[in-house]
Amino acid sequence: MSLPEPVEAYEPGERFRAEIHEQPEALRRLLVHEAEFARVAHVMRKRGPLVRIVGHGSSDNAATYGVYAFGVLAGCTALRDSIALTVYFDAAFDLAGSTVVGLSQSGQTPDVVEYLRRARRRGAFTVAVTNEPASALAEVAEAVLPLEAGPELAVAATKTYLNQLAALALLAANVGDNGRRVVRGVRSTADQLAEVLPAIEAQAQAVALAFAYVGRMFVIGRGFEFSTARETALKLLETCRVAASPLTATDLAHGPVAVLDPLFPVWTIASQDATLSAVREASARVREFGSTIVACGNAADAVDGAAYRLRVPVPDVPLLSPLLSVVPGQLFAAALARSKGFDPDRPRGLSKVTLAQ
Amino acid sequence: MSLPEPVEAYEPGERFRAEIHEQPEALRRLLVHEAEFARVAHVMRKRGPLVRIVGHGSSDNAATYGVYAFGVLAGCTALRDSIALTVYFDAAFDLAGSTVVGLSQSGQTPDVVEYLRRARRRGAFTVAVTNEPASALAEVAEAVLPLEAGPELAVAATKTYLNQLAALALLAANVGDNGRRVVRGVRSTADQLAEVLPAIEAQAQAVALAFAYVGRMFVIGRGFEFSTARETALKLLETCRVAASPLTATDLAHGPVAVLDPLFPVWTIASQDATLSAVREASARVREFGSTIVACGNAADAVDGAAYRLRVPVPDVPLLSPLLSVVPGQLFAAALARSKGFDPDRPRGLSKVTLAQ
Repeated sequence: MSLPEPVEAYEPGERFRAEIHEQPEALRRLLVHEAEFARVAHVMRKRGPLVRIVGHGSSDNAATYGVYAFGVLAGCTALRDSIALTVYFDAAFDLAGSTVVGLSQSGQTPDVVEYLRRARRRGAFTVAVTNEPASALAEVAEAVLPLEAGPELAVAATKTYLNQLAALALLAANVGDNGRRVVRGVRSTADQLAEVLPAIEAQAQAVALAFAYVGRMFVIGRGFEFSTARETALKLLETCRVAASPLTATDLAHGPVAVLDPLFPVWTIASQDATLSAVREASARVREFGSTIVACGNAADAVDGAAYRLRVPVPDVPLLSPLLSVVPGQLFAAALARSKGFDPDRPRGLSKVTLAQ
Repeated sequence: MSLPEPVEAYEPGERFRAEIHEQPEALRRLLVHEAEFARVAHVMRKRGPLVRIVGHGSSDNAATYGVYAFGVLAGCTALRDSIALTVYFDAAFDLAGSTVVGLSQSGQTPDVVEYLRRARRRGAFTVAVTNEPASALAEVAEAVLPLEAGPELAVAATKTYLNQLAALALLAANVGDNGRRVVRGVRSTADQLAEVLPAIEAQAQAVALAFAYVGRMFVIGRGFEFSTARETALKLLETCRVAASPLTATDLAHGPVAVLDPLFPVWTIASQDATLSAVREASARVREFGSTIVACGNAADAVDGAAYRLRVPVPDVPLLSPLLSVVPGQLFAAALARSKGFDPDRPRGLSKVTLAQ
């Protein structure tokens, strides 16, 4: 006689929310692997200055951050490489002077695995950054850097994304021979995050209440906060069914601004860095259209006319600000999904491991 | 005594529409400069294999195409370089082995001009591709390639975009020592376009009638048609106030698909190339959500379950398909804007030359 399986008590979105709160601890776990980052960086330095980063979804958003991490911390040109050129068009690149960094939380994304396989054959130094060190991606790569985020059960990535950012910053800092500073920076950022999480969550819930009927949004950022804009928009798409588009503060003015109206809010990422004046200028354009502005980041107070401000601390290493400024967006998505009656742990039509071509 | 200025008879959108129809002629004019493309390519070949392309708005969409043109036709790694890294963060790249291609229709985009100025100081070979050869961009660059699209008066770019694609293909083909083939290809593509424009316009108008109340759309493509997806989405944003997001066919499955419903249509670019199976797979996912599919491109018939098909011819050079597959999107935007009562020549809040930071 077989008994029915026990039914777990389950609150929609509880995993997503729990994993957001686990992020400080996940960041600290990553630092255990400090020596491995230094070893991989040592090989990269001998290869030459070109770093090709590939991934899909949140991993591709982390790649956007990687471009800045390698540029600022190591003076290396990094690019979000075209997967299609290599996998579909078999472009005849000589990759002997390149390092390839493959990002996949599951380590199973088919075309990322195939890209690394081909890039390695063409002479690239291949590095897998993954939460699953026993995966197909890890198998095809010469070096593996574990994300060490712990099991992530909600379909929408949170702690693996934050650990990808930290992993890219650590790798870049080691290539630039300044790994210790970023190790300390990630540790203090984790402490800052743990401290402010409860307050941010309360504020994000208040914004979500006002946004229950929003169907369209822009998320703007510039420089290394463009990764935050992309990741915030993706969380809103997948968990809240909001048509959220990420735009650089500058690209907003090149056309998209024309779509705005008072029912089309704009989530603005503002951090204390060289791009802040561009972000403020873009916000001024947004205001002319009457859109509600949510200002998020450590320079949220510098955005004039924002209806809501979600402030985060200033990190010791400025380049680490995206580890903090994405968290209000995660918590807002969690709250908005719930207020719309959706389960952010299991958005319809998605599964944790995406096997699409 | 001063007389009042004569009032021109003016039909909203007539410039936008006229400029779409001028595209075959604009493409032919570009070919007059064939020898200049060969000369610039000769210098590029001596510089090394890295090509950095920069631009905003439509020019950035053309840069997406450039990545594929240089990869497929010349075996060169091209990247849409980060303007912010150089202009705001002053990253210390050694650019002696790089060519920089600056795209700006007006030649006045401030941070593109500033990027080229700095890149040239750091040793890059700088090339301006612009419709205004007497502009600031042309002045800071070592070499200038004129777009020769003729005056573009509608705010939303059309013929300058097509000529940017052709210019990048010509430049890449010359770097790959195969310029003649692409010159012939652009000429025959211009002829094909002239022939099919009236039929595409009639079909696009029929789709627009059914889309009068659409507020959100995705535009998907893969490989070199991702540039088409980006440009189609931008036209819809700026002229029709539709929140249209471009996505690669693969990224759609990594989260955004969850937002779809029967009132959220998907414009799909399908061409006869190696990415077609990925595009078809993505369309199958879209169908599960009940979204209306518009299939556009020379493989529109391969997209199962499309409610509308906007077919374009197969060009002699496969890489030139984006010159044809973007045109149904332009004509759809023109028709949809009119059916919504907007003037696509002058979207509110935009001007022809964008001077945003």
